[in-house]
Amino acid sequence: MNRKKLEETAFDALDELKIELPSWGFANTGTRFGKFMQPSAATNIEEKIEDAAFVHQLTGACPTVAVHVAWDFQTGGENAEAVKAMAEKHGISIGSINPTLFEEQRYKYGSLGNPDPDIRAAAKDHIKDSIEIGRRTGSRDIVLWFADGSNYPGSANIRKRKEWFEEGLRKCAAKLSPGQRILLEYKPFEPALYHTDIADWGMSCLMSRKCGPSAKVLVDTGHHYTSQNIEQIVAWLLSEQMLGGFHFNDRKYADDDLTLGSIDPYQMFRILNEIFSFAWDTGEMPDIGYMIDQSHNLKNKLEAAVQTVDMAQHLWVKAAIVDRAALSRFQDAADLVQAEECLRSAFFSETGSLIRAWRRSRKLPEDPLEALRKSGYLDRITTDRAERNIPAESSYI
Amino acid sequence: MNRKKLEETAFDALDELKIELPSWGFANTGTRFGKFMQPSAATNIEEKIEDAAFVHQLTGACPTVAVHVAWDFQTGGENAEAVKAMAEKHGISIGSINPTLFEEQRYKYGSLGNPDPDIRAAAKDHIKDSIEIGRRTGSRDIVLWFADGSNYPGSANIRKRKEWFEEGLRKCAAKLSPGQRILLEYKPFEPALYHTDIADWGMSCLMSRKCGPSAKVLVDTGHHYTSQNIEQIVAWLLSEQMLGGFHFNDRKYADDDLTLGSIDPYQMFRILNEIFSFAWDTGEMPDIGYMIDQSHNLKNKLEAAVQTVDMAQHLWVKAAIVDRAALSRFQDAADLVQAEECLRSAFFSETGSLIRAWRRSRKLPEDPLEALRKSGYLDRITTDRAERNIPAESSYI
Amino acid sequence: MNRKKLEETAFDALDELKIELPSWGFANTGTRFGKFMQPSAATNIEEKIEDAAFVHQLTGACPTVAVHVAWDFQTGGENAEAVKAMAEKHGISIGSINPTLFEEQRYKYGSLGNPDPDIRAAAKDHIKDSIEIGRRTGSRDIVLWFADGSNYPGSANIRKRKEWFEEGLRKCAAKLSPGQRILLEYKPFEPALYHTDIADWGMSCLMSRKCGPSAKVLVDTGHHYTSQNIEQIVAWLLSEQMLGGFHFNDRKYADDDLTLGSIDPYQMFRILNEIFSFAWDTGEMPDIGYMIDQSHNLKNKLEAAVQTVDMAQHLWVKAAIVDRAALSRFQDAADLVQAEECLRSAFFSETGSLIRAWRRSRKLPEDPLEALRKSGYLDRITTDRAERNIPAESSYI
Amino acid sequence: MNRKKLEETAFDALDELKIELPSWGFANTGTRFGKFMQPSAATNIEEKIEDAAFVHQLTGACPTVAVHVAWDFQTGGENAEAVKAMAEKHGISIGSINPTLFEEQRYKYGSLGNPDPDIRAAAKDHIKDSIEIGRRTGSRDIVLWFADGSNYPGSANIRKRKEWFEEGLRKCAAKLSPGQRILLEYKPFEPALYHTDIADWGMSCLMSRKCGPSAKVLVDTGHHYTSQNIEQIVAWLLSEQMLGGFHFNDRKYADDDLTLGSIDPYQMFRILNEIFSFAWDTGEMPDIGYMIDQSHNLKNKLEAAVQTVDMAQHLWVKAAIVDRAALSRFQDAADLVQAEECLRSAFFSETGSLIRAWRRSRKLPEDPLEALRKSGYLDRITTDRAERNIPAESSYI
Repeated sequence: MNRKKLEETAFDALDELKIELPSWGFANTGTRFGKFMQPSAATNIEEKIEDAAFVHQLTGACPTVAVHVAWDFQTGGENAEAVKAMAEKHGISIGSINPTLFEEQRYKYGSLGNPDPDIRAAAKDHIKDSIEIGRRTGSRDIVLWFADGSNYPGSANIRKRKEWFEEGLRKCAAKLSPGQRILLEYKPFEPALYHTDIADWGMSCLMSRKCGPSAKVLVDTGHHYTSQNIEQIVAWLLSEQMLGGFHFNDRKYADDDLTLGSIDPYQMFRILNEIFSFAWDTGEMPDIGYMIDQSHNLKNKLEAAVQTVDMAQHLWVKAAIVDRAALSRFQDAADLVQAEECLRSAFFSETGSLIRAWRRSRKLPEDPLEALRKSGYLDRITTDRAERNIPAESSYI
Repeated sequence: MNRKKLEETAFDALDELKIELPSWGFANTGTRFGKFMQPSAATNIEEKIEDAAFVHQLTGACPTVAVHVAWDFQTGGENAEAVKAMAEKHGISIGSINPTLFEEQRYKYGSLGNPDPDIRAAAKDHIKDSIEIGRRTGSRDIVLWFADGSNYPGSANIRKRKEWFEEGLRKCAAKLSPGQRILLEYKPFEPALYHTDIADWGMSCLMSRKCGPSAKVLVDTGHHYTSQNIEQIVAWLLSEQMLGGFHFNDRKYADDDLTLGSIDPYQMFRILNEIFSFAWDTGEMPDIGYMIDQSHNLKNKLEAAVQTVDMAQHLWVKAAIVDRAALSRFQDAADLVQAEECLRSAFFSETGSLIRAWRRSRKLPEDPLEALRKSGYLDRITTDRAERNIPAESSYI
Repeated sequence: MNRKKLEETAFDALDELKIELPSWGFANTGTRFGKFMQPSAATNIEEKIEDAAFVHQLTGACPTVAVHVAWDFQTGGENAEAVKAMAEKHGISIGSINPTLFEEQRYKYGSLGNPDPDIRAAAKDHIKDSIEIGRRTGSRDIVLWFADGSNYPGSANIRKRKEWFEEGLRKCAAKLSPGQRILLEYKPFEPALYHTDIADWGMSCLMSRKCGPSAKVLVDTGHHYTSQNIEQIVAWLLSEQMLGGFHFNDRKYADDDLTLGSIDPYQMFRILNEIFSFAWDTGEMPDIGYMIDQSHNLKNKLEAAVQTVDMAQHLWVKAAIVDRAALSRFQDAADLVQAEECLRSAFFSETGSLIRAWRRSRKLPEDPLEALRKSGYLDRITTDRAERNIPAESSYI
Repeated sequence: MNRKKLEETAFDALDELKIELPSWGFANTGTRFGKFMQPSAATNIEEKIEDAAFVHQLTGACPTVAVHVAWDFQTGGENAEAVKAMAEKHGISIGSINPTLFEEQRYKYGSLGNPDPDIRAAAKDHIKDSIEIGRRTGSRDIVLWFADGSNYPGSANIRKRKEWFEEGLRKCAAKLSPGQRILLEYKPFEPALYHTDIADWGMSCLMSRKCGPSAKVLVDTGHHYTSQNIEQIVAWLLSEQMLGGFHFNDRKYADDDLTLGSIDPYQMFRILNEIFSFAWDTGEMPDIGYMIDQSHNLKNKLEAAVQTVDMAQHLWVKAAIVDRAALSRFQDAADLVQAEECLRSAFFSETGSLIRAWRRSRKLPEDPLEALRKSGYLDRITTDRAERNIPAESSYI
């Protein structure tokens, strides 16, 4: 591609990419060995929204923020409209709604998979309430992640739990309003350590199909077996029209929730490549949600968010500029090395100048990370919030 | 259970268990670093059948032998009836038919997923021929394992290949005679090292469903990501009526094709436990095939086969005697420790005396491994075949 | 072996096996997604000791309890003698001392590997204090586990941190009194998610050797890469006289801290087998510590502890009764199948009756799990402690 | 860095980088499921040398070729001087010598770890012969990779084998001439599938130290557990002065022997980064060997070799231009995000123009892959060698 065509392609791609930030990504989180408390961490929904909005202001790419029901809403969701208004006041909108189906003591043995029918009913009610909240906040997607599973062989009946999930999910899906979707996440392990009820894309896909056309699969990039080919799963889900969206993050070992592309940027690029490949073949971009799900125990949360968006934009542009006509030709001819070089040359292309040019043209700071550091925002929220982030409130035992 | 009930349960279970041996398990196989040639290895289909029949004679549990089309049949399958008769002469039957869709030079870039339509057509023809061979040998199952995939990002179009697979498999399935089945295997990697077209149970299940009710999933226990919960996959496939059969083996690292239960016998027990759990809930044993797929580079092949059957019988009986009423009660009450102990106490139960009693009652040797060693069979075949197993005919380069 | 010899071997082995329980195993612990609070969980060191002592009373195998410095001692260890006396009052002793080098806010970027020399000094002081506590409680072993590491490429200088570790550990080791030992643990990841300073047995062994003869390696069975051969590491460490002790637990995925033998009992048996193999060759049992390190988020903690000891005793006896003369003979002759059968037949031997006989002879309950359930102890501590175990005090954010 | 400084740094780095090609990388190799025969594959040592020399001619970076004793020399090494001369005639030299200690029937149960003392002696003799060949070819390094291990628990005595290895390696090391080195490779599995005698860097390091200062560790990038942090191992070995060299390749699953950087280029960059980091701290580049060990079943072997060198040069330059002063400052200040960005910005820097400039200045083709394609060399060797590369000579059974 010549420079003009390159810039055009990059600009179109960057205009297209909207990345949803998670409200919980601005709060203090940690590992089972405790949390390292950041004095600037957000401590309530307004602060989370404020942080997300500031990232959007710096990047122009994050118009929505995902929320978690138990952490961001009053029981019953009385404050749904207030939260919606709060977001709008800051120039963003409420994005996907995440029911909170773990962590509460009643979910010790599961939510929709709990052997106790009362708890299954409570979980269903919570999801239905969340759907209603989503309706009130104007959100499209209800993202379901289930921590359900078991820790020891024999301690749970896997097939029975599957049936309870099927029944529960169908009933919840029936409550969706037109335009709303359920995105069903999968995860192989943690916190359940022997079996997880919705463990892989196959289970999520099969279960989603039972729920009708409004249920799709959500791919969290960190929720796979080590060395699993995620881009293939994405390709299959696209082909089956079952991909609803992503939770982006990176990992080296387990579900580490690290910054996108921080460990294996080439893999992330290959995942995005499948999206542009699909668009090339079908003539339009798939309608999927790009959300971040990261947990920063050590990095500053605002810095990490900006870094994430910046990296996503770089990899997105690299995927956009792959020479698809050549790639297709080499693939058909089984010219392995030249086909591979199509991907590699795009990945290693210099894309910084394209992205800076786009930012300039959109009146955004050229280097959003530097802009964040110079903005005074971090100092201000540190001062404002430090007292509410009391150190050492978390311990292994 | 009292002893009488225990014996009855064990005897019923052992009468039920039929294990199919693979013809290729009696031939010399190895690793990419070469083969260690055994002078007693079978060198043609008659010797393989003879060996399988001898294992059946010793164990009473292996009435069929699986065959591989390119290795055991003439091109076109002219000798199908001869092979069938050969098996019958030795007191066994021909079991599942395995088309050979790798290893030939034309399959360098794939079989049903090859970008070249002529090679895709050739692969389809080979499968259709195999279905016809199966009809002539009286076999029920056509087992499809595809080595198809790619070694480098970009070198293949994953979605296009999925579509070629879909089209090819549908056409093959249409050729099945009533009573015949296609069992579709999956495998995450090897020999393809970047992406494998049918990589996991989800892909196999989705593809099988597109082929109609005669296509089912085959679970090879070695074809999973490390630490994947295989028993859960089995439970889901049973629940979905999509489990067609097994290839049994064990592994520590990759697809190591080691003797069943040699590395993790408790996992194998838990897999079998799901079958008896399903039977307890539904009132009948699922109709699935139990086949061995092992490759013994170092162990004597006959010894390994007998050891495998012996271990399978032990684990099968342990799974049969689980106290299902108690297990179900403890699971429903979330009494985790007692539920777990139901599995553990069955696994650690002494089952040797039950199996020996069954063997005596069925006029079989009590210790088939010792019987093999004392039979003189190994000496005889070593003498007969040594000349045909010339050492050092295999090298890395 | 005949029954008499078998019983003698088993009794000797069971008399030999002392298993150290961890104080923290009786307190509420969880995952990063929160803790499920048990009303009967121990909330202070006295309750932990009381629980450990009760498990010892039921099993006769747990005369010591491991303690964690920050959780079980006052700052500076003023209560060391009091804790020692407390244990003695309950009929047990204080075992290994575990300095607490994570979780505190100052350890955000590491302890001995922290780039800040003041924090490195503080960590050293804490270890030295812990050594002094160990002297006062009469403990032999100081167990060092470091959560130190980094989450992102580039964020830490791996070589510099290695040097800081070397310097710090040497200085700490110099403070050991005669008879005291440092046991240095390793772990590949978590909570550090990119690099962990002491990540594998090789690093731990190399570092220990730099600290002189009183530093040895501690093997936590859950701290390995998936599919790593742990028994080989144990064999090498024994051969090098560098094995100091174990943290026993089991896992399917990561460092899951599940009950010993609950996922892969055959692997645990093979680990113990290396100890008896070493003893057979050298004429005496190696002088190593057997400690439990498990975390039970769902199982009742007392039940899990008793179950653990019971399983350890079973696997220990199975390893003790391996026919070592035959095994050695078959190994030397490369008779693979018969050598393997030596291990397998011991593993699958009925050992319950041997263990029950030993318990009777030692005036212990035959079934300690049942004895626990019938003892009334669980009810009593539930009543006593429930108020102090307030639910829902732990959350992801 | 300004452009001038950047170019200077890149040119110095590129002048420094010498990559050794493996003779076996030009021959037909495959998987256990067979080889796809390339008509242009080298079939003897002269052809291999010719191919390696042509890659050197195109890239200017590959002045030596590694050889494998059993494949490239006559028994006893009579042709050592002839092979040396052959290389010189083509403008390159013989590099590291690789004794062939697997694949032969006598090594079925191991080489230096074989329970049969005669076979251990034969293996020692082969290594000593190889050392002598190395002396005669003027090679510095003897690279030892042992396939030794076992497939089943119990079938081998791990500790005894360790002692045999120790004794054998010491004796071999004693035969080294001044200037010669032994590089000891490690590998977790394959072809041994239960235990491998030299399985990880810790074993290799410990064993090398027993052999004196001329034995060092060789790191094959594909010989690690999935997700193991290889750059940390490299950092530790550098710090301990125990790193002798590399076998470069890439992998997604097992020891896949794929093209360097083809799956995870950022990891490869991080490995190289440790070398420049060490040089920065110590003031000189470590004296280590950079060798390729790849196996191309599908890719054209010459193309793959050129692609490998090209990628190595790119990643090498990226590692060379990391701003080490800034990196060090940010690491010391625990400024995680800016420290990380030092690595990332170097990795994503445009380095193609630097490399092309260097090539022009060294009179090398700017695009060696294109130069290869246009050279006519591939056509010529295809014609010359096709007859000697008969298809289908390799089969699973």
